[in-house]
Amino acid sequence: MRSTHAWAADGSTATPSTALHRTLVERRDLRADDIAVRVDYCGVCHSDLHALHEHGAGGGDDSEGPLVPGHEFTGVVTEIGPAVRRFRVGDAVAVGNIVDACLACDMCTAGQENFCREFPTLTYGGVDRRDGTPTLGAFAREYVVREDFAHRLPKGLDPAAAAPLLCAGITVWEPLRALAVGPGARVAVVGLGGLGHLAVKLAVALGAETTVISRSADKSEDARRLGAADLLVSGDPQAMASSQGRFDVILDTVAVAHDLAPFLDLLALDGALAQLGYLGPVTIETTDLLIGRKKLTSGGSGGMEQTAQLLEFCAHHDVVADVEVLPSAQVEEALERLARGDVRYRFVLDLSDLDGPG
Amino acid sequence: MRSTHAWAADGSTATPSTALHRTLVERRDLRADDIAVRVDYCGVCHSDLHALHEHGAGGGDDSEGPLVPGHEFTGVVTEIGPAVRRFRVGDAVAVGNIVDACLACDMCTAGQENFCREFPTLTYGGVDRRDGTPTLGAFAREYVVREDFAHRLPKGLDPAAAAPLLCAGITVWEPLRALAVGPGARVAVVGLGGLGHLAVKLAVALGAETTVISRSADKSEDARRLGAADLLVSGDPQAMASSQGRFDVILDTVAVAHDLAPFLDLLALDGALAQLGYLGPVTIETTDLLIGRKKLTSGGSGGMEQTAQLLEFCAHHDVVADVEVLPSAQVEEALERLARGDVRYRFVLDLSDLDGPG
Repeated sequence: MRSTHAWAADGSTATPSTALHRTLVERRDLRADDIAVRVDYCGVCHSDLHALHEHGAGGGDDSEGPLVPGHEFTGVVTEIGPAVRRFRVGDAVAVGNIVDACLACDMCTAGQENFCREFPTLTYGGVDRRDGTPTLGAFAREYVVREDFAHRLPKGLDPAAAAPLLCAGITVWEPLRALAVGPGARVAVVGLGGLGHLAVKLAVALGAETTVISRSADKSEDARRLGAADLLVSGDPQAMASSQGRFDVILDTVAVAHDLAPFLDLLALDGALAQLGYLGPVTIETTDLLIGRKKLTSGGSGGMEQTAQLLEFCAHHDVVADVEVLPSAQVEEALERLARGDVRYRFVLDLSDLDGPG
Repeated sequence: MRSTHAWAADGSTATPSTALHRTLVERRDLRADDIAVRVDYCGVCHSDLHALHEHGAGGGDDSEGPLVPGHEFTGVVTEIGPAVRRFRVGDAVAVGNIVDACLACDMCTAGQENFCREFPTLTYGGVDRRDGTPTLGAFAREYVVREDFAHRLPKGLDPAAAAPLLCAGITVWEPLRALAVGPGARVAVVGLGGLGHLAVKLAVALGAETTVISRSADKSEDARRLGAADLLVSGDPQAMASSQGRFDVILDTVAVAHDLAPFLDLLALDGALAQLGYLGPVTIETTDLLIGRKKLTSGGSGGMEQTAQLLEFCAHHDVVADVEVLPSAQVEEALERLARGDVRYRFVLDLSDLDGPG
């Protein structure tokens, strides 16, 4: 076993769910197809908040073990297993929110390891397929990962600003591709946060006429800076009514339960709404889909092949996240500010401070 | 005004909702672009049952006027207005469930008059766009309709068995086309009734490998006779589990509220489920769409252009409904048997008995 410094929650209900302490955690010794990665930057995702809350609610003892969040990171290869073919020591790499899958089912063989029928191994909060140990995330200085689940970070991509591409980015990229968004497509992005701002940049880079839908006009300037042609205020009934049938594709990145009917009404014939930010039960009226033969879909993270394509696309089109980089010691501040939406648009932790004294 | 014999419900709660009496109803004098049609055959649709129940529940008086159901019919042109260009007296024609629309909105100009933004005028239970009178359906010997909303009935199509193509047929045809069903597609049809049996025939004729999903194996023989390769019993957990990810497209024709999760589980990557038989609120778990990036969609009736294409396709591929033709005087029997699912697979009324004494 090897060990690394990390930020961990201990699962006690006596402390706030966002309380993380610096600790040493174990990493497995490298298997033949493993690489060890020095984690330089890791994005802070809504899923991290959610996982911490769930973990905190899990009980008063430590039976479920520590939780180390973090599942969109970039770094440098420091060691490779004897069977590793794709990477060398010193390579810049990126890893997202899955680190293993069966690679045999219909989803895996279609390149969608994120939908593996045996459920993919999550970067944290999962269970390693081979040794049964819990996975611990990348709010840590080192991560050990099967090489098939790491990506080469293309030259020219800033490693801090690229980290969020591995979860937020791929989550919006896959539906954009699956819904064939390209030049001429009329795309709306609901919610301008971590996912939303990348959805805007990627839709614009794909050639779509892109509109931000937001609760207020506060983010108009940001929307235009990101490349959007317009901002539509969802609370303005007149503006919403006059936008009926206006979009071919809507990416809904809102993280809480909400009524989809007002957004479905904005879709054109055969249009699709992809719900990407909220997981849970959704109720719709059939007629809201029937009239215009509209589609409701979803998605989350991505397959290895499409993630690699996204990274190449971003390098080519100069797309990265708008990030606020904080030393990892400020992880609690990042989580608290994320919880109240106070970030434009993604926190990224710089893990290099874990090399120093704790 | 002209008049014609018809089967009407009077809206009284004192009589069962399926009670229809023979009466004379008015038809408008022909406008310049109208044709008069002698109604020979009219299908009996679940919507008719629904409309009669709603009408019966409307109150104890006759203030809402009589209801004449019937919105999938074939017949012969008996008279034309002076501006009519497409039809002559003696032409065989077919009319579906819409008889007018604005023809100017985005949906109409895209050939989807069924989704008209001003709402299309329904064949019965609607309001005429020009004179504001209520529309009365085709359980009658004559119907007067704007020529743009009538179709030429292709030679070779039996007029009785073709009538259900105009509502049940087009309702399943549009999603089959919108979801690009063709050779190689794996299609499942949930529910083998009026819509379902036509969905099977059309999917098979389009070259799809087609499976019927039914609550029991009772209809196995019928499914095969209709061209299906297989019947999957939805109540068989083992069969359902081993069919996970098996279909690209599912047409769900079940007419009552039901859980969609077991069917969504049968979809392959990027697969789509079209809910066509049930109107009302639907609740799903986002993850049931997320895993496999699946789509939920709907549809109902069709545009004029696609209806014409359907009729040509059916003439070419020898597809019509399996019908049980009854004299229109037996309309109540047809409705009662339809309500309990006792028909394989569509009742069609022969309206010629309305020429005789009442």
